[in-house]
Amino acid sequence: MDVSIVVIGDELLIGQVTDTNSGFIARQMAPYGWQVRDVQVVADDSEAITTAIDRAFSRSRVVITTGGLGPTKDDITKEVLRGYFGGEMQFVGEVLENIKVIFSKRGLQLNDLTEAQAMVPSSARVIQNRVGTAPIMWFEDVVRERVLVAMPGVPFETSEMFVSEVFPQLLAKFPGSGAVAHHTVMVEGISESALATILEPWETALPDYLHLAYLPKPGLIRLRLDGHHADGDFLNGEVEHYAKELIGLCGEHFLYDGDRTPAEILLERLGEKGLSVATAESCTGGNIAHLITMVPGSSVSMLGGVVSYSNDVKHRVLGVKNETLAEYGAVSIPVVEQMAEGARRVTGADVSIATSGIAGPGGGSDEKPVGTVCIAVATPNGVKSHTYRFPGNRERVIDRASATGLIMAVRAVCDIKI
Amino acid sequence: MDVSIVVIGDELLIGQVTDTNSGFIARQMAPYGWQVRDVQVVADDSEAITTAIDRAFSRSRVVITTGGLGPTKDDITKEVLRGYFGGEMQFVGEVLENIKVIFSKRGLQLNDLTEAQAMVPSSARVIQNRVGTAPIMWFEDVVRERVLVAMPGVPFETSEMFVSEVFPQLLAKFPGSGAVAHHTVMVEGISESALATILEPWETALPDYLHLAYLPKPGLIRLRLDGHHADGDFLNGEVEHYAKELIGLCGEHFLYDGDRTPAEILLERLGEKGLSVATAESCTGGNIAHLITMVPGSSVSMLGGVVSYSNDVKHRVLGVKNETLAEYGAVSIPVVEQMAEGARRVTGADVSIATSGIAGPGGGSDEKPVGTVCIAVATPNGVKSHTYRFPGNRERVIDRASATGLIMAVRAVCDIKI
Repeated sequence: MDVSIVVIGDELLIGQVTDTNSGFIARQMAPYGWQVRDVQVVADDSEAITTAIDRAFSRSRVVITTGGLGPTKDDITKEVLRGYFGGEMQFVGEVLENIKVIFSKRGLQLNDLTEAQAMVPSSARVIQNRVGTAPIMWFEDVVRERVLVAMPGVPFETSEMFVSEVFPQLLAKFPGSGAVAHHTVMVEGISESALATILEPWETALPDYLHLAYLPKPGLIRLRLDGHHADGDFLNGEVEHYAKELIGLCGEHFLYDGDRTPAEILLERLGEKGLSVATAESCTGGNIAHLITMVPGSSVSMLGGVVSYSNDVKHRVLGVKNETLAEYGAVSIPVVEQMAEGARRVTGADVSIATSGIAGPGGGSDEKPVGTVCIAVATPNGVKSHTYRFPGNRERVIDRASATGLIMAVRAVCDIKI
Repeated sequence: MDVSIVVIGDELLIGQVTDTNSGFIARQMAPYGWQVRDVQVVADDSEAITTAIDRAFSRSRVVITTGGLGPTKDDITKEVLRGYFGGEMQFVGEVLENIKVIFSKRGLQLNDLTEAQAMVPSSARVIQNRVGTAPIMWFEDVVRERVLVAMPGVPFETSEMFVSEVFPQLLAKFPGSGAVAHHTVMVEGISESALATILEPWETALPDYLHLAYLPKPGLIRLRLDGHHADGDFLNGEVEHYAKELIGLCGEHFLYDGDRTPAEILLERLGEKGLSVATAESCTGGNIAHLITMVPGSSVSMLGGVVSYSNDVKHRVLGVKNETLAEYGAVSIPVVEQMAEGARRVTGADVSIATSGIAGPGGGSDEKPVGTVCIAVATPNGVKSHTYRFPGNRERVIDRASATGLIMAVRAVCDIKI
């Protein structure tokens, strides 16, 4: 089934908000062979929304809109959809009841604007929004067998309600058509073009129902094998077979069979061996700890860490020697190794990751330019460390340094004999 | 000037990658009165790209494409653009020279695929990509006075090159048409609909060249006043005048005059008083420290912090009493206050932010359900703390708790007399 998404909101077109809803919806539908054909981002403007819906239906029988359903004056999607599908605005009591429940949970007072949210076009069927106040609306063109579902723009509401209500109802309305399969393999320590040179003969010889995509991420490359075929069982077998060949071709650069973040891979490897982890971060400023603790259940392995941004904290909390700081500077292999050892000692963790570097834009020198980052990983086997030069701005250096520290820790944990 | 953006890549339509380029481009252009009319996200597919370019030109004289310019087989944009604008593929020596410079900086070897990147349609003018290997291409339809610029998909390359080369060349080609102005005001501690009820009469009376938009973010609401008028100086005066009125109407809920992250506001307030800050994070797991240290120059005020994920680290590093942990549990006001005091003591900071809560999905109880977060801020004036119940999944609870902690610290710093 082909799906087109229309994302509505001025705030997206001036770049104040980034659309993550369309990607979320695409990820949920892909395993069922439902493919997003295009995404259009348009303004809170009647003509723009109408044109986008026309275009979307020209390509797909299912259209999902997100956004523009709030209680404030700039949100006009509901009125535009009433104009498009016909009918009158009518008051729906159960929507107001739902708003009252949501408001009482949040300790908020009802007002005129929230009550206006209970007005819905008579051409729509309401899907109750359990996690927000804007009702979800299902418009169906029975003659042409096509459906438009209008969802809110708040990512939390859209993700919750798409998975639990909207997508199951769409699947029931349009039973499947052909299967899609994906298999992702993660590779590190090699450039995209060098990897492509290795893989090109194999890629060229792939059957026409399989396709390889390169998806670079900070510190690694994801290789995704995509398949589309009428026979789902056959396709799954083929994708698994070719994914094994792909892993073999990647050799020592192969990192993980599947699609996980470096933090998820590290937690999985730690969990297999019953090991714990801690961090000691200077230039990454807590980001490595954040990436680890974003993973549900990370508290099984993650003990904690220290953000030692100032030299004083490096010394006082992690026990880095003042002489080492004075002799080599904060961004140095001796300091980052003492930080890693300090993190193990202070937290009692088996494994620690430490970073010290110059994220920029200031602080660089000829000897240590912006992007210079020393990373150390300490384990019961000892400490391994390396100095990197990462390209790019502050955000990019922090991202690359965080991913690289996590991947170094994955490799180090694999070397630990239990 | 109206601009349409076409974002190209299968990875975006299956949701493996989120488009941030279009937002970046929109933010750069807005101050010059250039407005993004629509964004289309399409697959690496010849027909889809061609249709999207047609649609984009039907609306705008300037079209920017991003993505699909890599060296690998799935990237077909360059060939599609050659078909669209005509001409033959030809080898451009200066592109290869540029690739050689980039590769030698990164310590990589050239190979056949990278050399293929030096092939460019003869209908395009090359804009050298200083920070990547894919050449940027400028296609110009002289008769209809319209331009398409093809840029790479890597956000770092697009942002660097758009600001330094592409946009200046576009501005030179199409001198301005009317002015746009924005002014953002940040508000907290009130729901969107309660705020809208307060503001509605004022909003309705706004002159027709001004428009108010509500942009909720975790823990706060951004109110953006947008204006569009032929006379830029007049417009700027009007926007400033109405922004002052808006701030007055928001009363005690007004947080900041401008568009900043909570971490940026905190660092600004700390800097004004010469104060330092540290963190002690349990459920936010380093995210508050990360948000602070993402801001360039944060090292002036940020000393560091402790991610005390385990109770043992809360006790050993922050000095939280074991009896307090046993009596009240880790997620409690007494514990989070001791964490905040511990962070000040251990790092020597003037101000500290501490969090302890249940981000979920596991770990909740009837008494302390998922979303319960205790936050404390300690200053030389003492400790202030509060227990919150945040809705949503793990990511959302962490985001809300982090923003709330930072905003509590902003308020506390404002109360410090120097």
